[in-house]
Amino acid sequence: MTYYGGILGGATNSNIVIMSSRGETLGTSSGLGLNPHLEGVDTCVQRIGELVANAKASAGLAPTDCLRALGVTTSGGDTTKIRDDMETKLREKYPGMSDSYRIATDTYGPMATACPNGGIVLIAGTGSNCQLINPDESEYRCGGWGHLIGDEGSAFWITQKAIKIIYDADDGLEAAPHDVQFLRTKLFDFLGMTSSFDVISHLYENFNKSRMAQFCRIMAEQGSDDPLCRHIFRSAGYALGRHIQAVAPHVNASLFQQSGGLQIVCDGSVWKSWSLLKDGFLEALYPNDGLGVTVKEFSLVRLTRSPAVGAALLGAKKAGEKLEVDYSENKEVMYHHRHE
Amino acid sequence: MTYYGGILGGATNSNIVIMSSRGETLGTSSGLGLNPHLEGVDTCVQRIGELVANAKASAGLAPTDCLRALGVTTSGGDTTKIRDDMETKLREKYPGMSDSYRIATDTYGPMATACPNGGIVLIAGTGSNCQLINPDESEYRCGGWGHLIGDEGSAFWITQKAIKIIYDADDGLEAAPHDVQFLRTKLFDFLGMTSSFDVISHLYENFNKSRMAQFCRIMAEQGSDDPLCRHIFRSAGYALGRHIQAVAPHVNASLFQQSGGLQIVCDGSVWKSWSLLKDGFLEALYPNDGLGVTVKEFSLVRLTRSPAVGAALLGAKKAGEKLEVDYSENKEVMYHHRHE
Repeated sequence: MTYYGGILGGATNSNIVIMSSRGETLGTSSGLGLNPHLEGVDTCVQRIGELVANAKASAGLAPTDCLRALGVTTSGGDTTKIRDDMETKLREKYPGMSDSYRIATDTYGPMATACPNGGIVLIAGTGSNCQLINPDESEYRCGGWGHLIGDEGSAFWITQKAIKIIYDADDGLEAAPHDVQFLRTKLFDFLGMTSSFDVISHLYENFNKSRMAQFCRIMAEQGSDDPLCRHIFRSAGYALGRHIQAVAPHVNASLFQQSGGLQIVCDGSVWKSWSLLKDGFLEALYPNDGLGVTVKEFSLVRLTRSPAVGAALLGAKKAGEKLEVDYSENKEVMYHHRHE
Repeated sequence: MTYYGGILGGATNSNIVIMSSRGETLGTSSGLGLNPHLEGVDTCVQRIGELVANAKASAGLAPTDCLRALGVTTSGGDTTKIRDDMETKLREKYPGMSDSYRIATDTYGPMATACPNGGIVLIAGTGSNCQLINPDESEYRCGGWGHLIGDEGSAFWITQKAIKIIYDADDGLEAAPHDVQFLRTKLFDFLGMTSSFDVISHLYENFNKSRMAQFCRIMAEQGSDDPLCRHIFRSAGYALGRHIQAVAPHVNASLFQQSGGLQIVCDGSVWKSWSLLKDGFLEALYPNDGLGVTVKEFSLVRLTRSPAVGAALLGAKKAGEKLEVDYSENKEVMYHHRHE
């Protein structure tokens, strides 16, 4: 029997599946983040080895069973240099792990899981990233440049925005759009702060992007009635909608004509708060000034199988194999919109 | 004879003076950055020891000569905890270095150098920070929260803004207000980049705030005719002016009534580009909506002696000593404005 592995690596955590050639999931596992810019390539390679070992055990395979192909689609896997470096080190460190490798950036996994013909992937997890892949395989991206110049609409961005609004209001630098008391209390609790100055260590010497991004979850779970939380999520929705507008001019006409319209694959935990994002998202997609591309119909689709499945499919494709997969079972429509 | 040391520590570099009780500068030296959040307290303590040793040599003192007092005003010296930690470690590591210590945040050095009765210090170096010190010693600050949520108008902020405008324009996310070609070329040269993706390593694994901030200098020196550079500096001026507006409601009336009006001590290399900052700064200080405090008269003053002098004065004061200093010789007026 032949086995295929697929890994989707995020900045905070990662998931693996092992599949059969009939498209069944035989084993899974999960682990820590795999962004080579955050962790270094060596740590990522080490973690991939552990993921594969755990997933083999979960699938009932022997440690010595070699995969036919391993696909790794990971946050930070943007450049050929990094991808080649990872592959070389994987082959060196784990000689019998897989015959073939395909390494790609993190948008590729969700796309390959849901839309074999292409579409847009919009990731809003710890970081954010948007990628259009056309049926002719031409691709366009927007964002994904990290928290210092981008990541708009991501969990880290939402946290950062919350902190900035609180501190700017306290400084008198910029009035907050709504009362900051609720969020300030939650932030101080979250970071264990007793003084405003305590934030500095979290932004410098003890900076941890993934950890900071987890404040977004508290905002989502506890702040859905707080006007300032709602305002920030709405801004995040707007930022995410702007990413769609940015790649829209390059979308191949056939992608608009699919059943359900343009398919936008939404991955990452921020999408769990779609109800809070929605108004801002639509505002960005259909601006009052009427500028930009008018997307007549679109569907936000959510994966119902792990995006690591797409990574396995890409790995298999690279090795010249095709797994049996019913794509309609891999996704569900989270939101459908037809513009009048 | 009695000797007094003063150190002004920035994020990128630091300066020391050794003074006599008659206020004369006997020796000076300079070294690397002293921000404990960036370097760690131990490295800062080590660097302070080196600065003092070099300055003593420059003043013709013996290595064993003990200072009467050492004042250290440094970027990142915001909390009692960090200041106490630095003092404890300085006393442990260098027992005979100074009888007395005064450690304070970086705004205190320039203020004590120029304005013994108080005023506003507005730092725009690698980072930015604003502090109002009233004659009754009540103090208010705005900003200084680091590059993830603040530092508006600083050299790092200017660099970050430039990169973001270029990348957002290239992504189609946000149209640039002016052509980005000049700045893109300069940025690629500065960072040695051949591809847009190369920026990621500078924003993650090889991130160096001080180094990134130096791109601002290239913008200032080579971009004064480039519309986008001018736009970004104008935004920086606006951001800096907003800091003044933020603390203005707390300014003691007597500070407005001084000769030349409110004294604003401007420190940091970004002020070298005042001509590029000016329009934005005035726009923030006198907004079209007429909101905020109308500052009838102000003077931007630049130090003509090292801000480390102020650190030495603070150190001496803490030790119960008063150096003979003519404050008018320590500063010059960079810009004077009377609002009609």
